[in-house]
Amino acid sequence: MPLADTRFSNRRRALASNLAAQRLDALLVTNLINVRYLTNFSGSNGALIVEKDMTANIATDGRYTTQIAEEVPDIEAKITREMFAELLATVPAPARVGVEATHLSIAAFDKLKEKAPEDIDLVPVTGVVEKLRETKDEVSLTKLTEIAALATKALDDLLDAGGLAVGRTEREVAADLEYRMRTAGAERPSFDTIVASGPNSAKPHHGADDRVIDNGDFVTIDFGAHLRGFNSDMTRTFIMGEESDFTREIYDLVLRAQHAGVEAARPGTTLVEVDAACRSIIEEAGYGEYFNHSTGHGIGLDVHEAPYAATTGKGELAPGMTLTIEPGVYVPGKGGVRIEDTLIITEGAPRIITTFPKDRRVI
Amino acid sequence: MPLADTRFSNRRRALASNLAAQRLDALLVTNLINVRYLTNFSGSNGALIVEKDMTANIATDGRYTTQIAEEVPDIEAKITREMFAELLATVPAPARVGVEATHLSIAAFDKLKEKAPEDIDLVPVTGVVEKLRETKDEVSLTKLTEIAALATKALDDLLDAGGLAVGRTEREVAADLEYRMRTAGAERPSFDTIVASGPNSAKPHHGADDRVIDNGDFVTIDFGAHLRGFNSDMTRTFIMGEESDFTREIYDLVLRAQHAGVEAARPGTTLVEVDAACRSIIEEAGYGEYFNHSTGHGIGLDVHEAPYAATTGKGELAPGMTLTIEPGVYVPGKGGVRIEDTLIITEGAPRIITTFPKDRRVI
Repeated sequence: MPLADTRFSNRRRALASNLAAQRLDALLVTNLINVRYLTNFSGSNGALIVEKDMTANIATDGRYTTQIAEEVPDIEAKITREMFAELLATVPAPARVGVEATHLSIAAFDKLKEKAPEDIDLVPVTGVVEKLRETKDEVSLTKLTEIAALATKALDDLLDAGGLAVGRTEREVAADLEYRMRTAGAERPSFDTIVASGPNSAKPHHGADDRVIDNGDFVTIDFGAHLRGFNSDMTRTFIMGEESDFTREIYDLVLRAQHAGVEAARPGTTLVEVDAACRSIIEEAGYGEYFNHSTGHGIGLDVHEAPYAATTGKGELAPGMTLTIEPGVYVPGKGGVRIEDTLIITEGAPRIITTFPKDRRVI
Repeated sequence: MPLADTRFSNRRRALASNLAAQRLDALLVTNLINVRYLTNFSGSNGALIVEKDMTANIATDGRYTTQIAEEVPDIEAKITREMFAELLATVPAPARVGVEATHLSIAAFDKLKEKAPEDIDLVPVTGVVEKLRETKDEVSLTKLTEIAALATKALDDLLDAGGLAVGRTEREVAADLEYRMRTAGAERPSFDTIVASGPNSAKPHHGADDRVIDNGDFVTIDFGAHLRGFNSDMTRTFIMGEESDFTREIYDLVLRAQHAGVEAARPGTTLVEVDAACRSIIEEAGYGEYFNHSTGHGIGLDVHEAPYAATTGKGELAPGMTLTIEPGVYVPGKGGVRIEDTLIITEGAPRIITTFPKDRRVI
């Protein structure tokens, strides 16, 4: 039997002590990302139940019999089509069992209620595992650093090879970058790659289409790699061919805001304050209405996860959290700039794991 | 104002008449794929409400103001953070309003119940829009045919270029194939590409890793492309270097089963019968235990959607449905074969849209 990684049992221990505090006897974990976080299981179908004394049971279907035994050597798996009900049946009654309210569907909940013994109370709860995931352990931070480095190097290689050039389409550049990440070991992009050129750069959620990159364009590249559960996220904006007063002004403004956001990202600072550090600079320059999204988000097993740096942000930063800082200014019809780093919050200055240079760069 | 495509209003009309039959006054559509099906909206956040008289209202957030106006010119959009509640408020009370039970979370449902006027009854329903999506219109079938052709050509080009070869890793082959689909116009793979070689080919859900392809291996390639909402799905298995009695026997058996499945895929045939057409051949050859998944699935806006050809399949085939036929035999430790086509069900013989040859091929 392979040795179990104690990271996962440590996480279940942390969960178990939270359960007691919430007067729950167990939590039924149905969000697969949370199942992976607590056990290492990476299949596409599975569920877990953890009791307040740390007893854990896991279930999946017949496709994953071998895989779950390899990935989760320290919990015996139930192979079944009735995962939720069978897991529930392992909890000694009477009991209050939490279910993940933002993940479980009405239909699944109704079915579970039908099958649950009478003296098992099902209690919808939110954010229990997500809260644990906000602060990462050293192994996770190392993996996040590695996948960010892989993606950063792919962009570096793309530029070295002349892969970003006037005359290429956005789609060609995206495909080229994705190919480099893939051959370097990534399982897939962590989200649809954005290569937004010229007027398209003014649309924060543009993808990558058949527009041919032109002289004088901004080109915003927002991309990431996914490997064994972990994700990266970085944005850089380049100026093609020649600069103008417009491109210089917007770029330098966003860069200034981004630096201020990074500077603000210290333990004890609230997420609202981090957002304000970026936003106030853009607002003072008169471009506030063109920064129409929030400043950043945590990243880990999800590309977007708590904490969120936004005007509506909750709580404050702590060491071991990750956070993107990604202010942008988008002038409709003309162009836009976004500059994004992923940071690890430490006791001192944050560690930037997306190490690609941010100086204004004409290509 | 751009002209609205009548396909979408036709679909809403079909939905509206189904609502009346189910004694619903409206359906709140929260599954984004269903929203796209009924309106053409492709954003990552949105919802729709359709009343039994075909009145429709749609909502999204501020990021998609321009996009929703372009994509859905025939419904005025609400831009709001309270999409579900604001849509509900457009329905004249008293009313019974369906919600999508397999999609809506407990948390979202509870919030909606709090905000709903007293004389609005919320009724969880399942499969209402999914049922409409089972039978495709001509435009959709054309788009599915085009994306299948794009993917098929990418595999063709990969083989022509010698991209599948002894000495390459599974990951390299996958990256190469994905790059070809991407540059040909695909937005992304429709699912994680499988390149499973040698013993890995015996695992139906293997991905693509660093194993080096070897002489005598089976290599199973299961892949698809995604473009503007539509997906493709095809599997081919090749023999590397030289054949053996084992590889010949297994390949020819699976091919025979696959042909039988295609032959069975006619209007009026039940999904259970289609599954049995494949499965019985493999069982008679004594390999039944090694065909441990179902025979096929519909494909459209989702990669896997109704109908399902399985021992537990429901209903029967009708013209305009799509279906994959993908039997497999997986001998642990030795290797496996899967051969998969996507078909369009017609009045006569099905139309195979994944036109890549299936003859046993040694590379």
